[in-house]
Amino acid sequence: MKITRAPAFVWHFRRRPSGYGGQVGGQATLMAIALVCALAITTSFAHAALAAEALAAVADALPSWNDGAAKKSVVEFVAKVTKEGGPDFVAPAERIAVFDNDGTLWCEQPLPVQLYFALDRVKALAPQHPEWKDKEPFASLLKGDLKTALAGGDHALLELVMATHAGMTTVEFEQIVKDWIATAKHPKTGKLFTEMTYQPMLEVLDYLRANGFKNYIVSGGGIEFMRPWTEKVYGIPPEQVVGSSIKTKFEMRDGKPVLVRLPELIVNDDKADKPVGINQQSGRRPIA
Amino acid sequence: MKITRAPAFVWHFRRRPSGYGGQVGGQATLMAIALVCALAITTSFAHAALAAEALAAVADALPSWNDGAAKKSVVEFVAKVTKEGGPDFVAPAERIAVFDNDGTLWCEQPLPVQLYFALDRVKALAPQHPEWKDKEPFASLLKGDLKTALAGGDHALLELVMATHAGMTTVEFEQIVKDWIATAKHPKTGKLFTEMTYQPMLEVLDYLRANGFKNYIVSGGGIEFMRPWTEKVYGIPPEQVVGSSIKTKFEMRDGKPVLVRLPELIVNDDKADKPVGINQQSGRRPIA
Repeated sequence: MKITRAPAFVWHFRRRPSGYGGQVGGQATLMAIALVCALAITTSFAHAALAAEALAAVADALPSWNDGAAKKSVVEFVAKVTKEGGPDFVAPAERIAVFDNDGTLWCEQPLPVQLYFALDRVKALAPQHPEWKDKEPFASLLKGDLKTALAGGDHALLELVMATHAGMTTVEFEQIVKDWIATAKHPKTGKLFTEMTYQPMLEVLDYLRANGFKNYIVSGGGIEFMRPWTEKVYGIPPEQVVGSSIKTKFEMRDGKPVLVRLPELIVNDDKADKPVGINQQSGRRPIA
Repeated sequence: MKITRAPAFVWHFRRRPSGYGGQVGGQATLMAIALVCALAITTSFAHAALAAEALAAVADALPSWNDGAAKKSVVEFVAKVTKEGGPDFVAPAERIAVFDNDGTLWCEQPLPVQLYFALDRVKALAPQHPEWKDKEPFASLLKGDLKTALAGGDHALLELVMATHAGMTTVEFEQIVKDWIATAKHPKTGKLFTEMTYQPMLEVLDYLRANGFKNYIVSGGGIEFMRPWTEKVYGIPPEQVVGSSIKTKFEMRDGKPVLVRLPELIVNDDKADKPVGINQQSGRRPIA
């Protein structure tokens, strides 16, 4: 893996699982993607001896990984940037790795998990919204016709998100998410969504953490949908979660200061807006 | 100081210096302000014994502070939240303290430092903008008439900021700031702006850090104006700096990926938008 030094360091992971669901240990593929510096990953075998040594040393750190090129490139990279005095050394304070979430750390098939959350919220809120019976995308959803509901594309999706993610305080929303995630199950495996994580990636998180990295999530998913559970599930604290967000407004309610969630998007943290989010949250630039 | 436990912990400092400039050691006053939980600071002397003991132990940690109520409340608070097994214990990972910058960590008189930066940039860019000779607020500025230039209020200020803070890449802007801050001096003291910090507050930063806190800046100033130097001056890394920001856009320039700064405000991180910024960046709620 070719590394160029930059003033600061971010390493970005995005896994595209070869199949949906379950633990995909044997087939894990990994890509370290340059978001800003856009360096090609030109795995070099110049450091083969170092890599072999490092691989042996961490034999237990990535047990779900095949001993292939992907594992080798991860281990070789970490060995290089943590080697004090080496040309590629990165100070511990600057070791930041960023990970996509949906389809990388946990499943995103047959639908992104947050969409199941929104659907369940529509059902829960329907009694307070009799008008939804005649209004798309709600009407189709409530009839169980997901396909028609989502035929409205981004517009329908946004309406769905705002109806279920805004209008309450941040504290109330956090509790709603916590209650839901504690029991919500994947429709095909019957497992809790929080168990639908990829074991090889959990191992990478641990491995990087053990090597002085701070792991960040940079996801198209909602920041406040993820923050209530990422620490427990991934060991990633709220301040290291970057994602899409809606506006909030400071208000006094019943004499108490609160932040109210407004139905207005700040950023859809996906595609070309991901480097924007990384910069905004971390102020660091990728080097690999 | 009365503390109520909350899911997470943020402590917010805002100092209002009693006079402008220099080191204000002897007169430092300190307020721990509840931004969201809005707890009144009801300094209690119930733990006087504990506080006295703690004070003695950290006699050297806050040498610029008078042995008064302010110092006592800081030391007492830190002793409580770091006492393992105690009722107010806060886990190290949740110890976050947030600080205002202008007028708290460094001077903001006679003008906020970032305004001097904008003024210097107007002068530097003037040759490329002949139209500024007849256009306010630039025309007055270039004549040295600051008062008339700023008479346009927020609108004039915004125009000034956008003309000097947008249009370049984030990397270019960082370099402009670094070059400027390395030599820019306070108009009255002749000291570098980076030397116009408040010694008692630097001591508080060190003291909290030594007690497991992560220090954040939450300032009305620009994030990308502060990040290039806060680590060196305050020991606060870029990912712990929250502030006002303008939009950026991912682009390819000369075959290289960059983020271009656009003349559009995302957030003016001041007043009621400060708790919004704290929540957005840290995902934690204040308890004191």
